[in-house]
Amino acid sequence: MSRVRVHNFSVSLDGYGTGEGQSLERPFGHAEGRLHDWFFHTRSFRAMHGEDGGDTGVDDALAGAWEPGIGAEIMGRNKFGPQRGPWEDHEWTGWWGEDPPFHTPVFVLTHHPRPPLVMKGGTTFHFIDATPQEALRQAREAAGGLDVRIGGGPTMVRDFLAADLIDHLHVAVVPILLGRGVRLWEGLEEMEKRFTVESTTTPSGITHVTFTRPADQ
Amino acid sequence: MSRVRVHNFSVSLDGYGTGEGQSLERPFGHAEGRLHDWFFHTRSFRAMHGEDGGDTGVDDALAGAWEPGIGAEIMGRNKFGPQRGPWEDHEWTGWWGEDPPFHTPVFVLTHHPRPPLVMKGGTTFHFIDATPQEALRQAREAAGGLDVRIGGGPTMVRDFLAADLIDHLHVAVVPILLGRGVRLWEGLEEMEKRFTVESTTTPSGITHVTFTRPADQ
Repeated sequence: MSRVRVHNFSVSLDGYGTGEGQSLERPFGHAEGRLHDWFFHTRSFRAMHGEDGGDTGVDDALAGAWEPGIGAEIMGRNKFGPQRGPWEDHEWTGWWGEDPPFHTPVFVLTHHPRPPLVMKGGTTFHFIDATPQEALRQAREAAGGLDVRIGGGPTMVRDFLAADLIDHLHVAVVPILLGRGVRLWEGLEEMEKRFTVESTTTPSGITHVTFTRPADQ
Repeated sequence: MSRVRVHNFSVSLDGYGTGEGQSLERPFGHAEGRLHDWFFHTRSFRAMHGEDGGDTGVDDALAGAWEPGIGAEIMGRNKFGPQRGPWEDHEWTGWWGEDPPFHTPVFVLTHHPRPPLVMKGGTTFHFIDATPQEALRQAREAAGGLDVRIGGGPTMVRDFLAADLIDHLHVAVVPILLGRGVRLWEGLEEMEKRFTVESTTTPSGITHVTFTRPADQ
């Protein structure tokens, strides 16, 4: 059975999945790289961008689970780029460069559909205006039996959790207080009851929390 | 130097330090005992209430640090009892029984001062209407050179943190989502920069996070 998975979703101790004030220069707003520093240091992250080296260990083992078995991703528009409202710049093809690290179809949720963008390396961005359920139906079809990754940001992960569409969620709690931004944990009372929950703190100070749907184990 | 300490302050993964709807029967509102189950199982908690047994291990080691070296506590009114506004029942002496586990002076912050309550075992409740700074001055005087414990709930811990009056904070993050209640983490952006931060997850699934002021180590 194809599963729906979230990996490496970093939140601050006060629960923010991204900072305030996203812009082209600051994809995470005032959070800058602070939520993802642990990830940037891993071998898995560096390999994703064609670089050698990087730390191995528990952070890296968890980081590396993001790719195997994934056949499609669904992401929020803000993970593609900072533009709001009708698309004004069709030339700019997102934050992910000419050869994005996804290598699968990627469904970008937006109220402003536009033609697909075929990138190098197997990534095609499809821009769709759809409910979580409908987006997942399309992504599953595109994934050809493989799993679907829910890529974030926080609002769309929260929407998919609220709709009970997620089978596996990996959250990395970073011991910083952002104070403002977009919170992951809103309106998800007793969500843990649907999952087997495990936590582990690594020497980097990150606490990894996994939620796995029991029937899915 | 006398230190100001918070111990065993439990929050849900979504950051709530207490639930919604506190009442005489439900001191933690809809959170019930879920935030403190880990604590109730420890040998330290049982000893605090004159009982034998209980688990030992890392949870217990952290739990037991709440008492040694403390000469006074400051608590919010809601930790004493659920009454709001002017005191209507002077006979009821709080949630803590005839022999409260504090055994020191306890300063209860309230906009409605009343005469002190002298309990068995060395606990005296003083009811004061004071700023965090003034309450701490009085508690330090009463503590006779020992440390002062900030007892909670979440609003007053947050106020003392915002005023930079706390030297050591131990938070126990419980992997549940309460969804509503009173949040600890509000308006504390970059608080971690004032502290050395350590995290550890125990086999009970609790992640203990300690904030220690570097000059205080």
